[in-house]
Amino acid sequence: MIKAGIIGGAGYTAGELIRILINHPQVELVFVNSTSNAGNKLTDVHSGLLGDTDMDFTDQLPYDKIDVLFFCTAHGDTKKFLETNEIPGHLKIIDLSTDYRHKAEGNKFIYGLPELNKEEIRKSSYIANPGCFATAIQLGLLPLAKAGWLNTEIHVNAITGSTGAGVKPSATSHFSWRENNISVYKAFEHQHLTEIRQSLTQFQTAFTEDINFIPVRGNFTRGIFVSTYLKFDGTIEDAAKLYQDFYKESPFVVVSDKNIDLKQVVNTNKCILHLEKHGNRLLILSCIDNLVKGASGQAVHNMNLIFGLEETIGLKLKASAF
Amino acid sequence: MIKAGIIGGAGYTAGELIRILINHPQVELVFVNSTSNAGNKLTDVHSGLLGDTDMDFTDQLPYDKIDVLFFCTAHGDTKKFLETNEIPGHLKIIDLSTDYRHKAEGNKFIYGLPELNKEEIRKSSYIANPGCFATAIQLGLLPLAKAGWLNTEIHVNAITGSTGAGVKPSATSHFSWRENNISVYKAFEHQHLTEIRQSLTQFQTAFTEDINFIPVRGNFTRGIFVSTYLKFDGTIEDAAKLYQDFYKESPFVVVSDKNIDLKQVVNTNKCILHLEKHGNRLLILSCIDNLVKGASGQAVHNMNLIFGLEETIGLKLKASAF
Amino acid sequence: MIKAGIIGGAGYTAGELIRILINHPQVELVFVNSTSNAGNKLTDVHSGLLGDTDMDFTDQLPYDKIDVLFFCTAHGDTKKFLETNEIPGHLKIIDLSTDYRHKAEGNKFIYGLPELNKEEIRKSSYIANPGCFATAIQLGLLPLAKAGWLNTEIHVNAITGSTGAGVKPSATSHFSWRENNISVYKAFEHQHLTEIRQSLTQFQTAFTEDINFIPVRGNFTRGIFVSTYLKFDGTIEDAAKLYQDFYKESPFVVVSDKNIDLKQVVNTNKCILHLEKHGNRLLILSCIDNLVKGASGQAVHNMNLIFGLEETIGLKLKASAF
Amino acid sequence: MIKAGIIGGAGYTAGELIRILINHPQVELVFVNSTSNAGNKLTDVHSGLLGDTDMDFTDQLPYDKIDVLFFCTAHGDTKKFLETNEIPGHLKIIDLSTDYRHKAEGNKFIYGLPELNKEEIRKSSYIANPGCFATAIQLGLLPLAKAGWLNTEIHVNAITGSTGAGVKPSATSHFSWRENNISVYKAFEHQHLTEIRQSLTQFQTAFTEDINFIPVRGNFTRGIFVSTYLKFDGTIEDAAKLYQDFYKESPFVVVSDKNIDLKQVVNTNKCILHLEKHGNRLLILSCIDNLVKGASGQAVHNMNLIFGLEETIGLKLKASAF
Repeated sequence: MIKAGIIGGAGYTAGELIRILINHPQVELVFVNSTSNAGNKLTDVHSGLLGDTDMDFTDQLPYDKIDVLFFCTAHGDTKKFLETNEIPGHLKIIDLSTDYRHKAEGNKFIYGLPELNKEEIRKSSYIANPGCFATAIQLGLLPLAKAGWLNTEIHVNAITGSTGAGVKPSATSHFSWRENNISVYKAFEHQHLTEIRQSLTQFQTAFTEDINFIPVRGNFTRGIFVSTYLKFDGTIEDAAKLYQDFYKESPFVVVSDKNIDLKQVVNTNKCILHLEKHGNRLLILSCIDNLVKGASGQAVHNMNLIFGLEETIGLKLKASAF
Repeated sequence: MIKAGIIGGAGYTAGELIRILINHPQVELVFVNSTSNAGNKLTDVHSGLLGDTDMDFTDQLPYDKIDVLFFCTAHGDTKKFLETNEIPGHLKIIDLSTDYRHKAEGNKFIYGLPELNKEEIRKSSYIANPGCFATAIQLGLLPLAKAGWLNTEIHVNAITGSTGAGVKPSATSHFSWRENNISVYKAFEHQHLTEIRQSLTQFQTAFTEDINFIPVRGNFTRGIFVSTYLKFDGTIEDAAKLYQDFYKESPFVVVSDKNIDLKQVVNTNKCILHLEKHGNRLLILSCIDNLVKGASGQAVHNMNLIFGLEETIGLKLKASAF
Repeated sequence: MIKAGIIGGAGYTAGELIRILINHPQVELVFVNSTSNAGNKLTDVHSGLLGDTDMDFTDQLPYDKIDVLFFCTAHGDTKKFLETNEIPGHLKIIDLSTDYRHKAEGNKFIYGLPELNKEEIRKSSYIANPGCFATAIQLGLLPLAKAGWLNTEIHVNAITGSTGAGVKPSATSHFSWRENNISVYKAFEHQHLTEIRQSLTQFQTAFTEDINFIPVRGNFTRGIFVSTYLKFDGTIEDAAKLYQDFYKESPFVVVSDKNIDLKQVVNTNKCILHLEKHGNRLLILSCIDNLVKGASGQAVHNMNLIFGLEETIGLKLKASAF
Repeated sequence: MIKAGIIGGAGYTAGELIRILINHPQVELVFVNSTSNAGNKLTDVHSGLLGDTDMDFTDQLPYDKIDVLFFCTAHGDTKKFLETNEIPGHLKIIDLSTDYRHKAEGNKFIYGLPELNKEEIRKSSYIANPGCFATAIQLGLLPLAKAGWLNTEIHVNAITGSTGAGVKPSATSHFSWRENNISVYKAFEHQHLTEIRQSLTQFQTAFTEDINFIPVRGNFTRGIFVSTYLKFDGTIEDAAKLYQDFYKESPFVVVSDKNIDLKQVVNTNKCILHLEKHGNRLLILSCIDNLVKGASGQAVHNMNLIFGLEETIGLKLKASAF
């Protein structure tokens, strides 16, 4: 059994991680750390766990009792923590924040997108779990990058559920405002563009074209639906073969030959893709659950890889479907 | 032209009141007071008014320029205000808070439910606008009270939209929580029971039976849908005639002989009712828009009555229907 | 491995059953029968299964290859089928339709509510799986019935998601109508009242009081939320103890001492209950996922019992939570 | 008073048209024709009109009693009707279908986008009312076309509410499917592209660049939200001035200097626009209510113009806002 601990246990990604780990047949969840909730039951915050666990939040960090530590901390806080705390060398770290996603001198973290870096992840002890938008968008483009076929600017529109913005209340998370509403934010300037470009150039070093990304707030709670297009000289069959080949060892990515919709993936760790050719453009639709494949499910996938488990263990989740 | 001012202009009921008043052919909106927003545009807060008005919020209260003052203040604040501020005698006051709804010695406010107190409202200068739940529930029961037919306990279940809870963020107004969720609160103990009982006993003085009221939070923004039942000896035809007669002078209340649904009234000042007899029980369904008939529309209805206007003027609102 | 077949494979309950069974560690899904879809892929209808299975629908019924046959047929069709087809004696049958839920001479089916009939189910070969409303309502009342404490009429209001009405399009399943809408149907006369009363009188034979049941259509897809109340002489502690005791061997029923909301159970096989005492009334809130605990999850629970498996196997589903 | 008739009275656009016309101070609605509903009350189909009208649907077409005839017929049916029926010469026709939107020899209809063709509409008797997507997209691009600044390909993503797909049930209009779901359809090939290009080239004849249009199905009932971008050499101030100037005589179009969201326009006849410059790209956000500005409200606007009324009469609709 892998023994796991969580830091930052009160947020949405921590809740999802707990919900996955308590049913994972090879994991024992040892502690969930949350300073503000120490002493309270997990179910006080994550009320859907009622009947599943009687654990309390703790303010302790018994490193010696665990093999892997998940950081579900706010962006910036993982780095701050690791710079001021000594972590025992035996401990694997999986960080769900943005802090170590970008390659930099001295950054020992591997970017934890299994479809891109599976072998490196297996050998690593420190994983920077990808962003949710970044996951959905990259999975739609990586096969083209690998083939060196990203030769023009790229157009990306992605709509996200409200859980992507976290538990903290804000004007745009108020039900009365968001219900039946649509809006755009951070157009062309979303912070995930950095990690997307980093991954694409890992395959196609010379890629410098623009990625025009319009993020959209949707009136649903879970999921990201992306439509991407770019100029493409090949046929739809070329594209389909390229994607099928690229993902043939990726148990969570499915290329659908039919049109797709967001709810096919909600509450699962899957990414479903669909390709269409229109004139000289290739349209790539991709969708994920932002909390699962876009966060906590992918974190567990990374854990499975690090510890040499079967990739899908603990992640065969029943889709909610409706 | 009736000149109107608003105190407490940043909340949901103020927004709705502004949206109604700016299109009211007999009203000029003179000022909207909001301490916290003074100097900002109304559209900074109520962004749907863009293109309709260029007014700014003010922290002034130019009483001499208005005929009627609407209080859209938080519960408790109207009373506090009126106890510490001198209001000129010529001014009509319509208070949307709970502060003056309950009869008490020295309370000069008339309870502003036109279907109950139309003549008193016409002669009054001070109106306590009813609560939203209270409006929807009373309109389902008043005909029976008038006939003296409330002889057993009453069972009421009412589900409300999120705007009923106001603009202030809370755990239960977070989109990620409330979307697709249902919950009960203040069962048997909702504060509107007091005004409901007060109105029923205005007709049927001896009524002392229990009103078992279960308020429910719904995952929609606008509207209240009530199902009420009680023991009833008469036939469905008796009941239908009673309700038709009672509401024959009430332009906003419609008794439907078909089953009803909430969206028939959303964005209107209507209350639609439907009656069914099952065994010895009478089922009364009633629905309103909580922000219109349950708040700001009813306030304007009261204003129309006070100033001797045609009752429905400014209130023939297009239903959103979908 | 238990080998399973499904008849009526294109509907919502069949889809949910497939989604549960393909991840069940002790089950092999051998065939999914659907006359109208024979030859098509399961994923053509249940598109969320993409990547999980390549199975086709069949019009065959190879009884000799299976141990258990699930009927996901329309109400009336199971009976018609069983009266005109010979089923081998070795085969266990779990019927999700309404056809065999009511006790009658010659009806060999056991009513498959594990919290009521666990031992009978374990010994049975024919299970009539309960209705969704019936499940949620009974679980709120059975402890009282067992104690003989149902002495007055009962008041029940239950709101259901759209999947309860099935895949067939209708006026009330149209998105443009149902979104943000609320309505009541079959008030006091819902067909599930028969099985509810049957179960209550199984414990408290003399119970003849009215059950006043108002079913409500909600604007969400999954789940049933029930509020029930009745007169109750004991204390809240008496009630809590009664419910805790009654459900101490029931792994899927949780009594919460905090207020509850529907999303705590969505996408799980749980029923969560909450009790409050107000005056002389006991309020019982209960909620389930109509497709899981209210249909296919409960069917798998029954299968687990029949075949002597651990009760919760294959049913530890991650809640969607949002 | 303008006397109006409607053909095809049972659909969504007819319902919305009736809801607008019955409150229009200069219109009398004389008949609503619907073969399939003849003899039934309007409220049997458009139940939100309860209390507003007692009219019945008719299968008659008393042309002599009306001044204007609205066609709310299915696409193709207006043309079929006009080719086989003689319409008196005095009658103004406003067609909400797609049949006469495209310029062609012998087509006497004027394309009824007031912001483009106001003067022609005023002098015309036959109006082809624009498509909903087409309206929202054109209003975002016309100022640039007028200035001759459309010099590169254009990228458009537009998400629409379910009412855009009409009342007829389909797989993608089923609540259980569409709730919380997102999907793309007719990418790059939506039929409204023809009328969009026709309007743009009316100003900028030489425009031949691609318009890459991705239509998206949203999980809400009303509204279209469009994000459009293209390369643009000028400053954001240039763009803002261009748009402000272009729309200074357009009472229903507002250019917002703040970010916008869909609900600012729902249930109104407004189009709200917002501009941003990012690098060398101009982002244009635009939104409308598909049933009002995108259909029936625009039809009434056209009627107002034809009959020389003040443009906004009958169209100052209270936004639903929530």
